[in-house]
Amino acid sequence: MNYTVQRFTIHRETVEDTDVQDITDDVVQCIRDSGVHEGSCLVFVAGATASITTMEFESGCVADLTRCLESLAPSRKHYEHNARWGDGNGYSHVRAALMKPGITVPVASGAPMLGTWQQIVLLDFDNRPRRREVVVQVSGSTG
Amino acid sequence: MNYTVQRFTIHRETVEDTDVQDITDDVVQCIRDSGVHEGSCLVFVAGATASITTMEFESGCVADLTRCLESLAPSRKHYEHNARWGDGNGYSHVRAALMKPGITVPVASGAPMLGTWQQIVLLDFDNRPRRREVVVQVSGSTG
Amino acid sequence: MNYTVQRFTIHRETVEDTDVQDITDDVVQCIRDSGVHEGSCLVFVAGATASITTMEFESGCVADLTRCLESLAPSRKHYEHNARWGDGNGYSHVRAALMKPGITVPVASGAPMLGTWQQIVLLDFDNRPRRREVVVQVSGSTG
Repeated sequence: MNYTVQRFTIHRETVEDTDVQDITDDVVQCIRDSGVHEGSCLVFVAGATASITTMEFESGCVADLTRCLESLAPSRKHYEHNARWGDGNGYSHVRAALMKPGITVPVASGAPMLGTWQQIVLLDFDNRPRRREVVVQVSGSTG
Repeated sequence: MNYTVQRFTIHRETVEDTDVQDITDDVVQCIRDSGVHEGSCLVFVAGATASITTMEFESGCVADLTRCLESLAPSRKHYEHNARWGDGNGYSHVRAALMKPGITVPVASGAPMLGTWQQIVLLDFDNRPRRREVVVQVSGSTG
Repeated sequence: MNYTVQRFTIHRETVEDTDVQDITDDVVQCIRDSGVHEGSCLVFVAGATASITTMEFESGCVADLTRCLESLAPSRKHYEHNARWGDGNGYSHVRAALMKPGITVPVASGAPMLGTWQQIVLLDFDNRPRRREVVVQVSGSTG
């Protein structure tokens, strides 16, 4: 079986305070460009204040998730990280450590195996706008 | 080194409100059937209201995890998703986005490298019974 | 393309109550030893009371994450697992099930694609010192 691994980068400008962006179409395109037919796709954002997950990307779900994260790691609270470094993004670090930087999605017939109402999203928890690079690494068989 | 990637599907009927099911034996069988000796196994559930994780599958741990998720994203509370779509499963979406849809387990000597008291579980957070398809994709070397 | 998969083990002695240890240097060395140039690295801890994630490994962030986990699954509270088995580590099980046992990091040019302030950490949630084995499985192309 013919194995390949190919890496792509998605660039996104984000705004502060838990920006949630749908990156599914970009990931689908990367998989197509890779030529991988059966395998998997690792979607990963480097950095300690952002994460990748899947969800139904509609404004209600986004608001609900954001509110839950605000109760889990409130933005206005004392954080040791802020006290030591003056960054003000202690809550962003906690959220990202809990939610982790990546996700792996199976690929079949050259497409990600997602549900109909399931999108791949980038979550940027930082307290300032960022330019993010999301790595999409597709590996598997091409035949 | 001889590479292969093979995909299997586990079907499960679930009940509403955070059904937790042990799928370890099924995953072990998929790995055996794949012929992969050294590699990894991606266990993934498509859809925006279910997740995969590992835990000690005993009724105490299951009850404790369920209670924690209920405090994290309470089932009886206002959700924007419910207000907009009338689904009533806003809490299910939040839980699934936090816990993510998949897990990757290393495979050595044709078996998953789990601890003695560690099982792979499907968590269905939805508020109605579902028929779930869990994808088990095994990749690695056969030799 | 030449495919390889290689497995390494990192051994760590941990202390009780959410010990967080930076294992990045060990993972970097495993990737080097594997000879993989482009691929991915699965970092996985077997067992039901430990997890792997990434974070900025500085004492402020570690304290903030630990405090958040304590509010999420308090160590001093009633757990069904404790009531049935007398282990006292019900909270450890809940934390580990939520945070999951592994993480996959993309590898490019023989190094993990981490941010400058992003380290790979082992989190041991157990209520007693443990000797942990972290599996580092590197797969991809060597050419």
